Amino acid sequence: MSSTAGQVIKCKAAVAWEAGKPLVIEEVEVAPPQANEVRLKILFNALCHTDVYFWEAKGQTPLFPRIFGHEAGGIVESVGEGVTDLQPGDHVLPVFTGECKECSHCKSEESNMCDLLRINTDRGVMINDGKSRFSKNGQPIYHFVGTSTFSEYTVVHVGCVAKINPAAPLDKVCILSCGICTGLGATINVAKPKKGSSVAIFGLGAVGLAAAEGARISGAARIIGVDLNPSRFEEAKKFGVNEFVNPKDYDKPVQQVIAEMTNGGVDRSVECTGSIQAMISAFECVHDGWGVAVLVGVPNKDDAFKTHPVNFLNERTLKGTFYGNYKPRTDLPGVVEKYMNKVYDPDQIDVKRLILVVKLQELELEKFITHSVSFSEINKAFEYMLQGKSIRCIIRMED
Amino acid sequence: MSSTAGQVIKCKAAVAWEAGKPLVIEEVEVAPPQANEVRLKILFNALCHTDVYFWEAKGQTPLFPRIFGHEAGGIVESVGEGVTDLQPGDHVLPVFTGECKECSHCKSEESNMCDLLRINTDRGVMINDGKSRFSKNGQPIYHFVGTSTFSEYTVVHVGCVAKINPAAPLDKVCILSCGICTGLGATINVAKPKKGSSVAIFGLGAVGLAAAEGARISGAARIIGVDLNPSRFEEAKKFGVNEFVNPKDYDKPVQQVIAEMTNGGVDRSVECTGSIQAMISAFECVHDGWGVAVLVGVPNKDDAFKTHPVNFLNERTLKGTFYGNYKPRTDLPGVVEKYMNKVYDPDQIDVKRLILVVKLQELELEKFITHSVSFSEINKAFEYMLQGKSIRCIIRMED
Repeated sequence: MSSTAGQVIKCKAAVAWEAGKPLVIEEVEVAPPQANEVRLKILFNALCHTDVYFWEAKGQTPLFPRIFGHEAGGIVESVGEGVTDLQPGDHVLPVFTGECKECSHCKSEESNMCDLLRINTDRGVMINDGKSRFSKNGQPIYHFVGTSTFSEYTVVHVGCVAKINPAAPLDKVCILSCGICTGLGATINVAKPKKGSSVAIFGLGAVGLAAAEGARISGAARIIGVDLNPSRFEEAKKFGVNEFVNPKDYDKPVQQVIAEMTNGGVDRSVECTGSIQAMISAFECVHDGWGVAVLVGVPNKDDAFKTHPVNFLNERTLKGTFYGNYKPRTDLPGVVEKYMNKVYDPDQIDVKRLILVVKLQELELEKFITHSVSFSEINKAFEYMLQGKSIRCIIRMED
Repeated sequence: MSSTAGQVIKCKAAVAWEAGKPLVIEEVEVAPPQANEVRLKILFNALCHTDVYFWEAKGQTPLFPRIFGHEAGGIVESVGEGVTDLQPGDHVLPVFTGECKECSHCKSEESNMCDLLRINTDRGVMINDGKSRFSKNGQPIYHFVGTSTFSEYTVVHVGCVAKINPAAPLDKVCILSCGICTGLGATINVAKPKKGSSVAIFGLGAVGLAAAEGARISGAARIIGVDLNPSRFEEAKKFGVNEFVNPKDYDKPVQQVIAEMTNGGVDRSVECTGSIQAMISAFECVHDGWGVAVLVGVPNKDDAFKTHPVNFLNERTLKGTFYGNYKPRTDLPGVVEKYMNKVYDPDQIDVKRLILVVKLQELELEKFITHSVSFSEINKAFEYMLQGKSIRCIIRMED
């Protein structure tokens, strides 16, 4: 056990005192983990749009002061009562949604929507006692989605912690805690494109680029990026996107444009914008007979998905996914291995010796990481995100 | 070759001269089959609602005089040029939709929506020359969905003919040509319920009962029938339906009733009414995380399927199917074998000898057949259907 086990830890955290106001690095107190909780030393964060969304709190339930942060990597500092499958020193990724391994969802092979630990953006406390583990001068500071990783130490339910290969660099694999897995899994686990098939990706932000990466890994031949912002297209090529459609360039619905490009429709589509019109287009642009469309983006409260039922009867499928259908504890270690695996690049052949000479990562994470800042500069990460400059900005906690 | 090969055959057919008027048994001339066509001697028909729907022609393109009929069993009389996989004497089921085996749909493992031979209810002629093979006193009589089996002889494209086990009784297996396979396949091939799971069936007509039969064969534990007509419930028990919901008995949406009955929703649902409200209910009543809803019923032209997209994002799937996703030539012989197969009834055990003693058909077709008439009484079959008395009425062509 570490010398801090069972003790309150004083450490630095980036506290959001008010909606939309810059975070303030404060010294906070972090209580020890209770039953089925673990306390983590966070080494790296990545900023995800969901942090920014709830920090802005435009229409969301405002819950302040709060410690945001949910894409992160760290090391177990100590464990609470009843925690048997984690121990101090384990390398882990905290995740905003959990896996209790006991509810009907966890027992289903198909679902990752744990009844106990499903994401709850309105809850600012731990489920064990309904209280926060963070405080400053006795004033509680709210948690965010059970992770609150913008702190040097945080307390997380054991069901929200994935133990990973300790050889994996945490400054890279931390981005698997949320957006990248969401897009990647939407393609690999849910859309399941076949080798040589066509895939349309709606929205080329981080999640959409991860969905494209999933299509690239699956061996899709045509990966069609759809975005209203033409500047996204150049970046997207790195993620396997090899054709582009900007709906603004056409005076007909984008689903019709795509159907015409692909002799009746794409084999798969993945919707990563949350726009209801894009959802309808993503569904209607898949081929009859076998097309599958997957919804990822989160819609507005009052949106209605609307289509003619014959679009279904003509043997199209529409599915939605949450966190790419990954079960955090069961599946995340394997995704980390996909990054650690090296595979031969079929385009790099040494013709004289007839061997494949260049090894690549199967899952290429580095290309998502466009920026990096020290913890003290965390507000810069917010600026990069708001200005649309970054895909992922790493926040180095020890720097 | 039979002595009639290459000759015009004069035979009896039930001709619909006008929309909604009783069919008239006439002597008609049936031309020999052209390239890629076969001429069939029809022995048994079953009446399907689709025949009645296009005969009534309320809002449909009226195409008269016409010979209806598409659920049938017969024997090949002669084959046209280029037909190599069928020969005179083969026992066959003609099907209203085809399988050319060469288009992208036929080559896809997932689709049965053949580009060349997909159902076309507005076409009254053969695709080879755009003409009819039926005439009376030189006046052409239109075909219906490429089958026109209300005739002692008919001409069908080879792609619309399934060759089956000659030991199979045609007076039973003829009902596999349309409605029964549509419902059965919707469950077995598309919804794919697991053993012990729960399935809701919307609409307990012939197609819905066949969907229930598919759930029974799949080993579903709870098969919930949903129908506005309470008299359907008793009959449905024979098909494995063991719980009933009449939406009229509740003052809340039926999807909510079903969710409350099943701790959050059924594992699978199959919609067999064509009502847009039933479609929405069938989708919204499946469990989040893993639920799959399958649409079978044909909606009205102007209907819109409408739901909140979060219902998809919570990991529900919505699919449609056409003819139960069966490829007519490839798959129908296997469905016939499901009827021919005998399986042990697990409820009938001889305890003393510790053996299973009663064998049942795996697929029980007899219970769908409620009536039988001779060809001369064909209009009675229409009456039974219109009065809602029959599930399937067999029409004996040689009687």
